[in-house]
Amino acid sequence: MPDSFAVSDRTRVVREANRAVYDREAIYKILDEGFVCHVGFSAEGQPFVIPTMFARVGDAIYFHGSAASRMLRGAGGGLPVCITVTLVDSIVAGRSGFGMSMDYRSVVIFAKAEKITDFDEKERIVAAFVEDIMPGHKVRPPKRKEIAATVFLRFPLSEASAKIRDHGVMDPEEDHALEGWAGVVPLKLTAGTPRNCSDLGPDIPTPEYAKNYRR
Amino acid sequence: MPDSFAVSDRTRVVREANRAVYDREAIYKILDEGFVCHVGFSAEGQPFVIPTMFARVGDAIYFHGSAASRMLRGAGGGLPVCITVTLVDSIVAGRSGFGMSMDYRSVVIFAKAEKITDFDEKERIVAAFVEDIMPGHKVRPPKRKEIAATVFLRFPLSEASAKIRDHGVMDPEEDHALEGWAGVVPLKLTAGTPRNCSDLGPDIPTPEYAKNYRR
Repeated sequence: MPDSFAVSDRTRVVREANRAVYDREAIYKILDEGFVCHVGFSAEGQPFVIPTMFARVGDAIYFHGSAASRMLRGAGGGLPVCITVTLVDSIVAGRSGFGMSMDYRSVVIFAKAEKITDFDEKERIVAAFVEDIMPGHKVRPPKRKEIAATVFLRFPLSEASAKIRDHGVMDPEEDHALEGWAGVVPLKLTAGTPRNCSDLGPDIPTPEYAKNYRR
Repeated sequence: MPDSFAVSDRTRVVREANRAVYDREAIYKILDEGFVCHVGFSAEGQPFVIPTMFARVGDAIYFHGSAASRMLRGAGGGLPVCITVTLVDSIVAGRSGFGMSMDYRSVVIFAKAEKITDFDEKERIVAAFVEDIMPGHKVRPPKRKEIAATVFLRFPLSEASAKIRDHGVMDPEEDHALEGWAGVVPLKLTAGTPRNCSDLGPDIPTPEYAKNYRR
């Protein structure tokens, strides 16, 4: 795969083009920090945007769900989808209303879903999903009937771009002399103390990977 | 406005209908904790999903941006959009791959954009936006040319539903005897220490509302 994504009409960042990122490594880093994407698809002209967990494996992202899900039916029929992953890094408070903003990193992917039919590949994806969502967590293997009841979709990463805003306050110079405060408040998705499942056996300790969880 | 949203074909939660919420107050609470939405619209059959900051004011949500933005042009033409706000509350780690999930609250809104043309209303929206994003923050009034260069869109909240997953691990009973850990890791978007704008005057203190920022 080339180091950078070719820029298409759809992935070209139109506004604030200086914030555009087409570098594959930089885009994968954002995808790997994220674990929730927003999947957009159209059904009879009506757009739908549905949040779901995903994992990146190699040059594709994957998600799975019930065969009864509207989203998976919509996205799974080979329809064009747009998948967006957004990480918010700070609230930006400028000296005017239009100076309110956020620093963030987002990736927008255009793709058509490929339905995975191979049992072994589905097993590999389930394992990769666990490792992506909670590294170190060990689970029992999936059952044949669980795999059969689940739709697995692959979205090749061939058309994608990122937008990174990281420069904080951007007030026009004439505002700098104003009396009010301006600055940024950093935001981070932080993990709290794990809660054991109420059905957990008494001798099973809370593992370090859960206590020290971070993205 | 009625206390609950009427359920439409689009807002009916199909999968896991027990997680569906149509109550207006519950939906507004999620919208008010959030400040980033994902806006979905279609352009020539191709869906786009773009993150943007929003504010709820009364029975509508609002956002604004440059008149050159593809998203605002797309959403602003009276096209049907889907706007989704997602708050992630925890990572759920079950005893199998299919037991990996998240507890979350999300709102899905279907609406057509209404372009705001009235200057006074635009001013009110800018002020409401500041107060929504960073309560207590005081800014200078918007300038006439800034307002003119900005597209303001209103999305009436008349067709919306929420989905709340809050029950943690949902492993099948036969998995409870397994040796592995299962539980949830709570996640929260937390604010760090504010950073003053580098152009800030030396005598302007960092305000308490920034130091104690929380959603």
